Amino acid sequence: MQTFSVALGPASHPVHVGDALLDGLGELSRAAGIRPGPVALVTDSNVARHYSARAASALEKGGFVPKLMVVPAGEASKSSAVLQDLYDHMIGAEIDRGGSILALGGGVVGDLGGFAAASYLRGIAVVQVPTTLVAQVDSSLGGKTGINHPRAKNLIGAFHQPSAIIADVGTLITLPEREFREGLAEAIKYGAIMDAAMLADLERDLDHILARDLGILEALVAKSLRLKAAVVTADEREAGLRKILNFGHTIGHALEASAGYGTYLHGEAVAIGMAAAATLSEKFGGLSTDEGSRLVRLLQRAGLPTEMPPKFRTPDFTAALRLDKKRLESGIEFVLLQRLGKAVTRRLDFEQIVAVFTN
Amino acid sequence: MQTFSVALGPASHPVHVGDALLDGLGELSRAAGIRPGPVALVTDSNVARHYSARAASALEKGGFVPKLMVVPAGEASKSSAVLQDLYDHMIGAEIDRGGSILALGGGVVGDLGGFAAASYLRGIAVVQVPTTLVAQVDSSLGGKTGINHPRAKNLIGAFHQPSAIIADVGTLITLPEREFREGLAEAIKYGAIMDAAMLADLERDLDHILARDLGILEALVAKSLRLKAAVVTADEREAGLRKILNFGHTIGHALEASAGYGTYLHGEAVAIGMAAAATLSEKFGGLSTDEGSRLVRLLQRAGLPTEMPPKFRTPDFTAALRLDKKRLESGIEFVLLQRLGKAVTRRLDFEQIVAVFTN
Repeated sequence: MQTFSVALGPASHPVHVGDALLDGLGELSRAAGIRPGPVALVTDSNVARHYSARAASALEKGGFVPKLMVVPAGEASKSSAVLQDLYDHMIGAEIDRGGSILALGGGVVGDLGGFAAASYLRGIAVVQVPTTLVAQVDSSLGGKTGINHPRAKNLIGAFHQPSAIIADVGTLITLPEREFREGLAEAIKYGAIMDAAMLADLERDLDHILARDLGILEALVAKSLRLKAAVVTADEREAGLRKILNFGHTIGHALEASAGYGTYLHGEAVAIGMAAAATLSEKFGGLSTDEGSRLVRLLQRAGLPTEMPPKFRTPDFTAALRLDKKRLESGIEFVLLQRLGKAVTRRLDFEQIVAVFTN
Repeated sequence: MQTFSVALGPASHPVHVGDALLDGLGELSRAAGIRPGPVALVTDSNVARHYSARAASALEKGGFVPKLMVVPAGEASKSSAVLQDLYDHMIGAEIDRGGSILALGGGVVGDLGGFAAASYLRGIAVVQVPTTLVAQVDSSLGGKTGINHPRAKNLIGAFHQPSAIIADVGTLITLPEREFREGLAEAIKYGAIMDAAMLADLERDLDHILARDLGILEALVAKSLRLKAAVVTADEREAGLRKILNFGHTIGHALEASAGYGTYLHGEAVAIGMAAAATLSEKFGGLSTDEGSRLVRLLQRAGLPTEMPPKFRTPDFTAALRLDKKRLESGIEFVLLQRLGKAVTRRLDFEQIVAVFTN
């Protein structure tokens, strides 16, 4: 197990990464200050099948009374209707201001459970227990929570730091191949924007990673989260530096929204977004074409899509790009690579972005 | 005009209290750092009739493009449906992460507009522009925002500090008598829990206050907000001291919930709650019966109800009391008076509370 702290003043909290941590869920939660008694164990229908009994049993051993709340698997659960349903269940379970949510699952459960915690009784504690690679290398850390609006992803949300992050890499064994590979997109992102050596490690270890070697996965997850923690610590509310974490995401989000949520997995859209951002980086950021190609090749070796679909030329895509929350008036604060391992932000006009892909 | 600052570190913000401040809305908002451009001017159907044109014009003078969003007047607008509607309008108005909400109205508009700001794009700025006495002496300050759940008031909400509070006492002139009087309940509360001299001033000035002398109202509003600011500064998230602000509110909220929202105005329910808390204070807090009677008399002179209705004996009331968010396991953290001007908290069992009123 690797353990480190995300230093955020009063919102500081521990991160644990390792195999079989689910069995220590009660103990680790207690150590993080979670009050014994009833806790909402929020998960989705896929994760519940594999892990809810084990998580519940570990919580009971730690003095908790887990109240299981299972939402349908998939992005559609990041909805106002499912959120309302969760509030109802939490009231029924008598979760009060001292109560907590354990969000056991992927990004959807983390975002939904996190926002339920942020908005219930003006904020209760949440422990993030990510079980997908996307959530373990990225979304569980940083305090971003939220649900979707029909017109924009994560439009409704809040910053709400967890009391602890407990990433059990053993849960990655049951992850479907496509979801595993989308997680690699986010890990590759951290190498691309912050750490050229990590990118080289990924190139070297990719076969072992794809074979789900748990030792190498523990190192990969811990490395990604440590890099993210460094950024989040410096800029909790995304006022500056943290924007670099959006590398590949501006176009990725717009693709997801215009294609209809669910067509692409988030990481797949981000992979396409990163490949597109690499092209833009060659034009506006200083990235060499060799480096751009190296990044695209790594994404492809990880089994990720890198081609912008014809769809992106539609007015839907442009409209979605404009609505994206990183939008700054008529242009976009866009994240580019100066070189592999070094990201910068540049203000690009919509026209500049679209022109690169229509010529 | 009286101006002071609520000291909350990075969330510090100014408070302005005075007559005709609506006309300086643009200027004061700019001074508080609100970005020019489109802003959501959220108000209700009653307030809009009197003040929306004036507020919009003042905002335009300050370089803003106010987008008026009018919700139906009344507590029923603190609903998930109205909140969703607000999000839709904000998207339509292209309010982005640098955008803001101006919440022009009473407690409902402040809570709803504040929570919309807290939960839109993970939090945008809000300026509180209270136009009722309840909002001016109390609810506009402290960062509490939220909407109701069918089973509990303010169940869905967040702490979200405003960028400024601009209280124009001139708007109190058009306030219906019953709503004006409910505001006095909250002002009386500040005297009761924190400042015996203020309570004596209220006894002395009550006739001028009821005649809506704007000079005396400015002093009353500023005094109440200064007292509240002192408490909130010491305890932003209601971990300790801030609990004393709930004097009269535990029973008040339960009354509102069990009688159905809308039967009592909030301040009326709080007045009954304070009178009940005075009785409990005589039994468990050390308050003399003379002092208890003095508080009840002042409430009555202000035209407020002080009698618990027969309704409180129903299981509905007890259930609502149990669900109240100040609930701590089987009992309640209850605010009592040791003497006039000095509040304390005591843990009381439900049985102790109910027994006092059924004997």
